[in-house]
Amino acid sequence: MSQKEIPYKIYLEESEMPKAWYNLRADMKNKPAPLLNPETLKPMTAKELSGVFCDELIEQELDETTAYIEIPEDIRNFYKMYRPSPLVRAYCLEEKLQTPAKIYYKFEGNNTSGSHKLNSAIAQAYYAKKQGLKGVTTETGAGQWGTALSMACSYFDLECKVYMVKCSYEQKPFRREVMRTYGASVTPSPSMDTEIGKKILAEHPGTSGSLGCAISEAVEVASKTDGYRYVLGSVLNQVLLHQTVIGLETKTALDKYGVKADIIIGCAGGGSNLGGLISPFMGEKIRGEADYRIIAVEPASCPSFTRGKYAYDFCDTGMVCPLQKMYTLGSNFIPAATHAGGLRYHGMSSVLSQLYADGLMEACSVKQTEVFEAAEKFARVEGILPAPESAHAIKVAIDEAMKCKETGEEKTIVFGLTGTGYFDMMSYEKFHNGVMTDYEPTDEEIETALKRLPKLDV
Amino acid sequence: MSQKEIPYKIYLEESEMPKAWYNLRADMKNKPAPLLNPETLKPMTAKELSGVFCDELIEQELDETTAYIEIPEDIRNFYKMYRPSPLVRAYCLEEKLQTPAKIYYKFEGNNTSGSHKLNSAIAQAYYAKKQGLKGVTTETGAGQWGTALSMACSYFDLECKVYMVKCSYEQKPFRREVMRTYGASVTPSPSMDTEIGKKILAEHPGTSGSLGCAISEAVEVASKTDGYRYVLGSVLNQVLLHQTVIGLETKTALDKYGVKADIIIGCAGGGSNLGGLISPFMGEKIRGEADYRIIAVEPASCPSFTRGKYAYDFCDTGMVCPLQKMYTLGSNFIPAATHAGGLRYHGMSSVLSQLYADGLMEACSVKQTEVFEAAEKFARVEGILPAPESAHAIKVAIDEAMKCKETGEEKTIVFGLTGTGYFDMMSYEKFHNGVMTDYEPTDEEIETALKRLPKLDV
Repeated sequence: MSQKEIPYKIYLEESEMPKAWYNLRADMKNKPAPLLNPETLKPMTAKELSGVFCDELIEQELDETTAYIEIPEDIRNFYKMYRPSPLVRAYCLEEKLQTPAKIYYKFEGNNTSGSHKLNSAIAQAYYAKKQGLKGVTTETGAGQWGTALSMACSYFDLECKVYMVKCSYEQKPFRREVMRTYGASVTPSPSMDTEIGKKILAEHPGTSGSLGCAISEAVEVASKTDGYRYVLGSVLNQVLLHQTVIGLETKTALDKYGVKADIIIGCAGGGSNLGGLISPFMGEKIRGEADYRIIAVEPASCPSFTRGKYAYDFCDTGMVCPLQKMYTLGSNFIPAATHAGGLRYHGMSSVLSQLYADGLMEACSVKQTEVFEAAEKFARVEGILPAPESAHAIKVAIDEAMKCKETGEEKTIVFGLTGTGYFDMMSYEKFHNGVMTDYEPTDEEIETALKRLPKLDV
Repeated sequence: MSQKEIPYKIYLEESEMPKAWYNLRADMKNKPAPLLNPETLKPMTAKELSGVFCDELIEQELDETTAYIEIPEDIRNFYKMYRPSPLVRAYCLEEKLQTPAKIYYKFEGNNTSGSHKLNSAIAQAYYAKKQGLKGVTTETGAGQWGTALSMACSYFDLECKVYMVKCSYEQKPFRREVMRTYGASVTPSPSMDTEIGKKILAEHPGTSGSLGCAISEAVEVASKTDGYRYVLGSVLNQVLLHQTVIGLETKTALDKYGVKADIIIGCAGGGSNLGGLISPFMGEKIRGEADYRIIAVEPASCPSFTRGKYAYDFCDTGMVCPLQKMYTLGSNFIPAATHAGGLRYHGMSSVLSQLYADGLMEACSVKQTEVFEAAEKFARVEGILPAPESAHAIKVAIDEAMKCKETGEEKTIVFGLTGTGYFDMMSYEKFHNGVMTDYEPTDEEIETALKRLPKLDV
């Protein structure tokens, strides 16, 4: 098919939308290492997880054999409100770069949560409702995940308690009000609602909070409140599973037009968007049906893949969650305050960690001023104002397209544009005013943080 | 065709997108009254307008006979970056309301400007570029139009100077930074750049500015700067013309599924979105090919149609622009500061004014707390967080759907959802906190403002 016949935006028909999520673990030769109980150091059982998580989500979390898991009709109907998301051919960016590369991006920002997070939020809310629960708790930093979950809970008439890192609560009132519009209760963390919150406030009265503390509060409330469970927006296997709608739609759209991707690029914080985008392609790669270069892009200020250690570690700062084997910078590693976007998690999805350890994907890190330069260049030609997180992938997609310009190769590059930057304009302002700085942790900082790794021989 | 076969979102193919704008004036039996030169009281000529506006846009402004005006290919390509916009079947809202009515909305918010404004911004930037101009000036209040124009100018490498009402410049830094991301210069108005700005600052040193003052500054800079013209985001005939892409796409999508609309609803400030949405339907109505109820919804705090006078008036507070015959509240009428959204213009499109005077459409006004209630209800079931402006149409669409519930009629209701409310969260916050108030001008206030109408017998 000639290039000109490919539209600017490929929208699938509703009938072409995926009816099942794809569970990459079923095809992985080396399975990701299991979650461990921090006390017994034995794999967590479904029963042990059931006080915190919903039952069917635990099944999905532990399932390593079922390749396709049906998407319930209620979730598919919700997906129809904002999906299929467009796969966009970046004709304008290609022309601006004067590259022979063909660039596509899967745009997940066209919904009120402003990102891909909604794909998993609606699934988690659905299973909570199905289990007859009253509500769920979660934490949120900047508010993307909290917004998505609020929307999902509103749809299923579930209560939603969000613990929002205090400094974000105060500095990002817009996100807070979006959550309230969807009926969520939003509490600045640390709060007096919980034992851990009271303890932290007693020790550090002026603290502005942290994600680790907000997680601990949300988990505590979920486990102590009748009819409540805790839900999480990234890192977990179940979240990657739900996010495979991104990759499945992308693959169907490319196949429909006979396009074969050469390079697939995504940003990586906890790994949910990247895992969701690449899963079907990685499945083909593992099964030897096709080959792809797959690149994870992380911030230089929080470089789990590129400078972390592959080891069992705590998933949270409070050390209350199970141990997970992953690339990690240490569970109390916190990126510098000058770091603008998300992608702040100290660890990484265990699925992606295993794939990276097996040499099936690459990783690279980029500096934030470069990221905002790429974001602005992209916005001016493609129209969409990207989230800083998403712009990590843009930066590397542009780099790869420029390499094609040098070599003359007509490679097909596909990247994930996870969301919009409407609530990140304070960071753009810093960039415009020339006061944005770059930061990379020193080797000593990372070594110090890694000293907190649990001591175990597994 | 059975209802179930209609998808949640109807996306046209690129090949089905309109190739020409539809000029409703060609079909109107009573043409809108011409713009008058305020000095001679004779119709403005193209030559008189050419110092301020671009040449081809003036042609479009004055053209009352050409029914279809071709959309240049460059504009159609830009449209492809964010259009066709979806026509959404509001299945979830229908279910929530338990109404037999079928509700559809044309959603124009899925682009970075967050509204339909981009449809005309790109056209105006294109003609400015084609004329070999260096740049354009404009004013913006909350920033929706300024953002759209910045994006359009960035695409065509045109300079863009935006005069932003000072209080918005300070209170809405996000919009300002979006404009800067697209390379626009944004100046708080009144400024020391212009004679009128200096004059106002000398008289009122602490003023927080007004739209009328920003218009005057933008017009002054355009007329005094080589290679510059002034552009406007609503009210004008040319803007309604460009916005007919909304209505044309809507009609094609409905026709494709064999759906006949009964009621068409849109919010009305200057009238560009409403005019664009209804034009093709109104054309059929005028030609006797079909009948529709068409409803303009305006804020009770700025009720041009429902409480204004149909008369020649000044288009701007500064009284420098031509006179236009329209429904008006008087050129220095300013809605109360407690009014949250846009739709603040004292007058109305002359095309829509004529249609309303001829009894071809209805108008009603709604209070802002009702509007925010409707907005929140809609957001919770349909996902999209609407702009306060757009929520005026939602409010009346829900009212009409509830009437159908009473009567059992299965009417088809179509409304325009012009944009998203991400930058309006401070207003939502007021609503959540129960401190939002309603306001309606008294008869005396309107009478006083109308005393400023120019005295002429036409």
